[in-house]
Amino acid sequence: MRGVIMYAPGDIRVEDRPDPEIVEPTDAVIRIAATCICGSDLWPYRGVEPVEGPAPMGHEYIGVVEEVGPEVADIAVGDFVVGSFFASDNTCEICRAGYQSRCVHNVPMGSIGTQAERARIPLADGTLVAVPGSPDPALYPSLLAASDVLGTGWFAAVAAEAGPGKTVVVVGDGAVGLHAVLAAKQLGADRVIAMSRHADRQALALEFGADEIVEERGKAGVARIKELTDGLGAHSVVEAVGTQESMTQAIRAARPGGHVGYVGVAHGVELDGMRLFFSTVHLHGGPAPVRRFLPELIDLIVRGDIDPGEVFDLTLPLERAAEGYRAMDERRATKVLLTV
Amino acid sequence: MRGVIMYAPGDIRVEDRPDPEIVEPTDAVIRIAATCICGSDLWPYRGVEPVEGPAPMGHEYIGVVEEVGPEVADIAVGDFVVGSFFASDNTCEICRAGYQSRCVHNVPMGSIGTQAERARIPLADGTLVAVPGSPDPALYPSLLAASDVLGTGWFAAVAAEAGPGKTVVVVGDGAVGLHAVLAAKQLGADRVIAMSRHADRQALALEFGADEIVEERGKAGVARIKELTDGLGAHSVVEAVGTQESMTQAIRAARPGGHVGYVGVAHGVELDGMRLFFSTVHLHGGPAPVRRFLPELIDLIVRGDIDPGEVFDLTLPLERAAEGYRAMDERRATKVLLTV
Repeated sequence: MRGVIMYAPGDIRVEDRPDPEIVEPTDAVIRIAATCICGSDLWPYRGVEPVEGPAPMGHEYIGVVEEVGPEVADIAVGDFVVGSFFASDNTCEICRAGYQSRCVHNVPMGSIGTQAERARIPLADGTLVAVPGSPDPALYPSLLAASDVLGTGWFAAVAAEAGPGKTVVVVGDGAVGLHAVLAAKQLGADRVIAMSRHADRQALALEFGADEIVEERGKAGVARIKELTDGLGAHSVVEAVGTQESMTQAIRAARPGGHVGYVGVAHGVELDGMRLFFSTVHLHGGPAPVRRFLPELIDLIVRGDIDPGEVFDLTLPLERAAEGYRAMDERRATKVLLTV
Repeated sequence: MRGVIMYAPGDIRVEDRPDPEIVEPTDAVIRIAATCICGSDLWPYRGVEPVEGPAPMGHEYIGVVEEVGPEVADIAVGDFVVGSFFASDNTCEICRAGYQSRCVHNVPMGSIGTQAERARIPLADGTLVAVPGSPDPALYPSLLAASDVLGTGWFAAVAAEAGPGKTVVVVGDGAVGLHAVLAAKQLGADRVIAMSRHADRQALALEFGADEIVEERGKAGVARIKELTDGLGAHSVVEAVGTQESMTQAIRAARPGGHVGYVGVAHGVELDGMRLFFSTVHLHGGPAPVRRFLPELIDLIVRGDIDPGEVFDLTLPLERAAEGYRAMDERRATKVLLTV
């Protein structure tokens, strides 16, 4: 089969890879219908994270089950499925508490690489959620978004306790931040403020339910949020970038007793204990347990209540993955879908 | 009146200070019945925090109202009252959300100094809670504990979401940690594990409701907690020290999705963003909003349900405050009560 390989920062190739096979009796093999490039794939692409190339790439996927191991009971050949970036058994105590990304048996799907024609899915019964029937291909972008960026934005909004009566600020206007805006609105937030200075992303934030846009960043951005919240700060803040500046901005934009949900993978971030102490915020985040939210998200998508797939602003065939990486790196695209 | 003054690290004197007066119409003046020395008073005493001496000391207090300003309505002359270390209006949006220590009009009581015969209490209606009737002096130690160490330990346990079904670990065996043990048990935790290597504090932890004691610290301590929790870590962890080692130990002792409540004033603590991200814990803490809990704590004390005053293991008259500071600094006393 064909699949995406990163050899070194900036060096993306599409090559022949061995066809996946059932290894464990709980595995499934799926034929991928669509996959995509993640903001987190840019960390190694830019050399910020080391690449031990040649490395298979990709951890977002939707597709059709082609084969299942003898212990797979709930997922069947022919099912159209969505999974997330960690395979999880969904039965251990950590999974049952809603933290499937930290399942005691978790397998990072990035180590398997789903930017490919097929993929082995470990712990298929726990990992995969079947979409009812055969979904209209028009729904593929939204179902694919649920696999990571929507699920991650949703978790961030939940971690920030977005809901009725709350003013929610979203720091970060990438795909995850934009989906956090959508999630906050769906969760019933009174008022959602998106921090963005890119016109196209501002437009999508407004379409996803943002009530206001704040263009300022850093100290000026925090000051603007305070102005908009009677000097107190927001009840809920989502951090969806993962830099020192964005974390600091998120924590300072929250009021005392407020909640910060952070899902940007924190690169080079150091939090000063004393400042955090006196901020008196709640801080929660990490690799999103997307699996927790998949049934609900698939349901919202199939019913047509949400259209998160709009976040994809460039679609390319798998063979042209390298162009997709370049477009995201150069910020010419927010999120690239790869058709298979 | 007589009051405690810190001139420099290690230099504590009891001197004549001006009698307090009503300054704002919302003030009260109280005659102090008992006060005490706080673990946080040791930071400047040891020169870890700068001292701008001569500085009045003390922020814990119980006493009788002697005078009230013209706008005080709920507190009356003659009331026996308990307050906490931040004066707060208890009416602003932050107070109503339960974060009175971050009240928009808060006044730190440490700037007034309650290790004295009398004290001015700003925002008396919001700050003070009256004890029904005239409490038995045998209850003074427990009521005084509610003013800070019990209220802070209670907040830490609430921030760590201690409750039914939970295994709670307490890092720190000072007065606050010991009271967090008491709080966790009162809040219905299934199992409370106190981390302590001092025999006298272990004994008090057990009396306050600890089910187990772990003597190991640091990595060995975390490994022991994992052993005791099926390899997962605790649901809830209280951090009540405020050092790099104790914060790291607390975060690592919590399971994914678990809750860390931290109330040790974080001195020189830096949290690595990436490690915190992958820990996937909830982190919440800061200066405890003791006022939130005072009515409930006073009720438990007056009914005889809890006896937090046992944490005082040395009682001295105010005039001998310097001896009390020395005893706590040298760890000969956990907590020193000063009679007035």
